[in-house]
Amino acid sequence: MNEAIIYTDKYIMISRDELLEKVANQMSNHRFQHVLRVEKKALELARRYHINLEQASIAALVHDYAKERDDGEMINLIKSQDFSKELLEYGNPIWHGIVGAYIIEEELGITDQDILDAVRLHTTGAANMSELSKLIYVADYIEEGRDFPGVDEARRLSEIDLDEAVKFEAYQTLNYLLKRKQRIYPKSIETYNTWVVNN
Amino acid sequence: MNEAIIYTDKYIMISRDELLEKVANQMSNHRFQHVLRVEKKALELARRYHINLEQASIAALVHDYAKERDDGEMINLIKSQDFSKELLEYGNPIWHGIVGAYIIEEELGITDQDILDAVRLHTTGAANMSELSKLIYVADYIEEGRDFPGVDEARRLSEIDLDEAVKFEAYQTLNYLLKRKQRIYPKSIETYNTWVVNN
Repeated sequence: MNEAIIYTDKYIMISRDELLEKVANQMSNHRFQHVLRVEKKALELARRYHINLEQASIAALVHDYAKERDDGEMINLIKSQDFSKELLEYGNPIWHGIVGAYIIEEELGITDQDILDAVRLHTTGAANMSELSKLIYVADYIEEGRDFPGVDEARRLSEIDLDEAVKFEAYQTLNYLLKRKQRIYPKSIETYNTWVVNN
Repeated sequence: MNEAIIYTDKYIMISRDELLEKVANQMSNHRFQHVLRVEKKALELARRYHINLEQASIAALVHDYAKERDDGEMINLIKSQDFSKELLEYGNPIWHGIVGAYIIEEELGITDQDILDAVRLHTTGAANMSELSKLIYVADYIEEGRDFPGVDEARRLSEIDLDEAVKFEAYQTLNYLLKRKQRIYPKSIETYNTWVVNN
């Protein structure tokens, strides 16, 4: 395990231990262990690519904060807040990032746009991503508990070039959804068109 | 070859022979032969599924009318007319249907929305397609000159159930683009999400 990051109060007004407790309260232990592994990977990549460690730690710890929220609550938020109503055609796999960013701001008082964007985009990616967003997108995909065809290649790329890892993941993710005939969120196509297509 | 359709003046004010001449003037002989095969297949399917033969013939003959238009002309039309400017990120494979429908209306005086929609959607499909749009989408894919993995299955499905053929084509088309890492038009994802995804 990496040495724990000491939080300043630049991004969140509570300590890492207090954040851990709040996050743990939102989810199963199984998912919480995943979150800890994403933080570990995020810090490893942040050190490698000189990305702010505190933002990396916080974004990693909160990225799945809304993953186990009730669908009804999410639907109410989409309807009552400033979200595209086409979101209603999707489900928690899409909502927990986009609506999750809103919930994190409301409940944890996180207002740093870089962290909120990283949460917002961590499942679908986007045409334009900050370094922090790329890092969370990739760390979530390759944390050491992940085991699927291609994960070793994704890990290898993540150690060489973060953009190459994003590109690989964007392609694989779309391919995975298509193979299983699962619904594809149009934003994922923007990610693919920008990152994967050979122009 | 099917017996040629005699046009009334319900959909176009010229005869089929005159339309053939106008279409031939827009493209290489190679493409014109493809257009004739699409018409043949479209009429075959129209008879099978009781779709208007005259609309099927006209839509088939004009579907690629703008396929060999100069990119500069297409770009000018996208900029000057009421088209989504994101179209500019694509190229003739997407433009010739969407902008093509506009050109056909302007140059051939076709105002029948069913025919214009069939041209507009023949490459990308759409969440909602009329029977004529489905017919042109499928006929273009399986006309007898086509030879690619899966075409025989598409032909088999087209003889059983037009919707199944649309579904198969929507999946295969997306898969083809992804495999080749080619740009995907977001509309194609709507087609896929509606037709292919197992809800």
